[in-house]
Amino acid sequence: MKQQILVYILISFAFFSCLSPQNNEIEEEKKIGPITIVIHGGAGTILKKNMTLEKEQAYREKLAEALNLGYEVLENGGTSIEAVASSIRILEDSPLFNAGKGAVFTNQGKNELDASIMDGKTSKAGAVAGVTTVKNPIMAALAVMENSPHVMMSGGGAELFAVEQGIEIADSGYFFTKRRYNSLRRIQKKEEEQSAYLTENPDYKYGTVGAVALDSDGNIAAGTSTGGMTNKRYGRIGDSPIIGAGTFAENASCAISATGHGEFFIRNVVAYDIAALMKYKQLSLEDAAQEVINKKLVEQKGSGGIIGLDQAGNITMTFNTAGMYRGYIQQKDNAVIKIFGE
Amino acid sequence: MKQQILVYILISFAFFSCLSPQNNEIEEEKKIGPITIVIHGGAGTILKKNMTLEKEQAYREKLAEALNLGYEVLENGGTSIEAVASSIRILEDSPLFNAGKGAVFTNQGKNELDASIMDGKTSKAGAVAGVTTVKNPIMAALAVMENSPHVMMSGGGAELFAVEQGIEIADSGYFFTKRRYNSLRRIQKKEEEQSAYLTENPDYKYGTVGAVALDSDGNIAAGTSTGGMTNKRYGRIGDSPIIGAGTFAENASCAISATGHGEFFIRNVVAYDIAALMKYKQLSLEDAAQEVINKKLVEQKGSGGIIGLDQAGNITMTFNTAGMYRGYIQQKDNAVIKIFGE
Repeated sequence: MKQQILVYILISFAFFSCLSPQNNEIEEEKKIGPITIVIHGGAGTILKKNMTLEKEQAYREKLAEALNLGYEVLENGGTSIEAVASSIRILEDSPLFNAGKGAVFTNQGKNELDASIMDGKTSKAGAVAGVTTVKNPIMAALAVMENSPHVMMSGGGAELFAVEQGIEIADSGYFFTKRRYNSLRRIQKKEEEQSAYLTENPDYKYGTVGAVALDSDGNIAAGTSTGGMTNKRYGRIGDSPIIGAGTFAENASCAISATGHGEFFIRNVVAYDIAALMKYKQLSLEDAAQEVINKKLVEQKGSGGIIGLDQAGNITMTFNTAGMYRGYIQQKDNAVIKIFGE
Repeated sequence: MKQQILVYILISFAFFSCLSPQNNEIEEEKKIGPITIVIHGGAGTILKKNMTLEKEQAYREKLAEALNLGYEVLENGGTSIEAVASSIRILEDSPLFNAGKGAVFTNQGKNELDASIMDGKTSKAGAVAGVTTVKNPIMAALAVMENSPHVMMSGGGAELFAVEQGIEIADSGYFFTKRRYNSLRRIQKKEEEQSAYLTENPDYKYGTVGAVALDSDGNIAAGTSTGGMTNKRYGRIGDSPIIGAGTFAENASCAISATGHGEFFIRNVVAYDIAALMKYKQLSLEDAAQEVINKKLVEQKGSGGIIGLDQAGNITMTFNTAGMYRGYIQQKDNAVIKIFGE
């Protein structure tokens, strides 16, 4: 009997010795992190000395609300796409950020909104550019992804699609906020004095919002929404609705949402460049983000930042500006929220 | 004296032996190819059996005209950007291609044109999307790049900018061609029968045009121009005006112009993905193009092709469709023009 047990143990040992290296490899390939939501509310010259305690508190509370809702969606078995859209919607509905309700004004006193979303599992994506009547552009982007053969729609055509899809249309006057209107008047006054086309100072706080998430099935997703640049002209489109520039997600690499001086993010294909550095150069998410945001962009004086997440649950919140509204939840009841460069 | 000469020779030999490996390295880094222009006029189901000799001759002549003008610009010391714009302009002015004059009709019977251009030396870029009145969208994209702080403009705003820049505006009716209008009516009839939103069959010939060039200073550039999809709705934007998807150029990697089913090219960030494979995985231009067009896209059933060029003068014209209108000049008076999969 003792001998039999010994033989059994020896055979088992031999058997598992053979198996285990292979198993480990498979384990490593499939290492999936816990459900996670990461959000940003824009990068820029966000300094403690310029912020009242009340204002800081208001930002922290709204970021917490967006994080909590996104995490709740994930806890209830929702997809990363659903979590991303839910969190962004909260930020779009707040006047604090330059997206949805709080969108800045164009040169013609209009609010032209852009948004995009991408599913890391399927590589499907949707985007809208230059919509003026859609209350939550991220919901229109989601509808483009899910219910159309296209990736990107713009202007009146995108608005028509949103109406057909039953997306909520904003009342006239919904996007009016005194703060943003005063910003427009201030810049236009300066413009008159200087006789030049001026947009919001590229180093000023932008307030674009975005989210990335990892769901309980191990799928990642990313989304971004913005009101663009104060006093912008000519139907300018920034990086936010551009897949590869402002938003990108694929399970094999990472999910990224960007905020910053959009022209630099388009020319440098920022979101996809981080993914490519991970796939083709085996850089970690953090190293890839540092390479693009704090080396390439800094050399070109392109200001801004990104949030990123991979399937293993690694998080990055990288920016080359003074601050970025940002936060994440990876452990229940443990929201991490930051604003300044700390 | 003989001894002195011998010593001199020996010292020289030792000296140059030491230097030469370093020199070779520097030489290799700076290897610049001869001036080159490469163009395409769209990829798709282009089969010899469906083409009359007269039609084939017309395409070949127009491609030759565009190539010759681009090469002439380069021969006269023009920049790669100037050559790209000049070649594309010829193709835009022809009714044969789905760009400029020959643009297809949207669902509403309009012609909405997209174009983009990028300079590999400076990484500056310009793009217009959904313009309906600009005769040569590539010239508007060039003006955005050179004379605005933006990369991308759309719709009426982009048209206003074009007017301010003195870009030629088309007469009403300029974009009407019977052939394209009949295509719209044919698809709309089928659409009524099937009660579904149909665009041009993704496997049908698209006719987007593009060019990449290498100039005598060793700088590369890329540009793309299109009329989009027949019967498209909702202000759909394809890959042509998207930097990273339809167009990309940087001296350190390559210049790419794409044509095909735009949604796949956007989701896969096709143009930049080829550049990233060269930079981060040290793939050759040809191998990188094959990887993206004939592996990644084929797996997803994303049809289309690209033309590409690097600083060393390597050329690729890669497509996963039956044919692609394409050609290049790298040696004076030696234009290579192809249409079918040969």
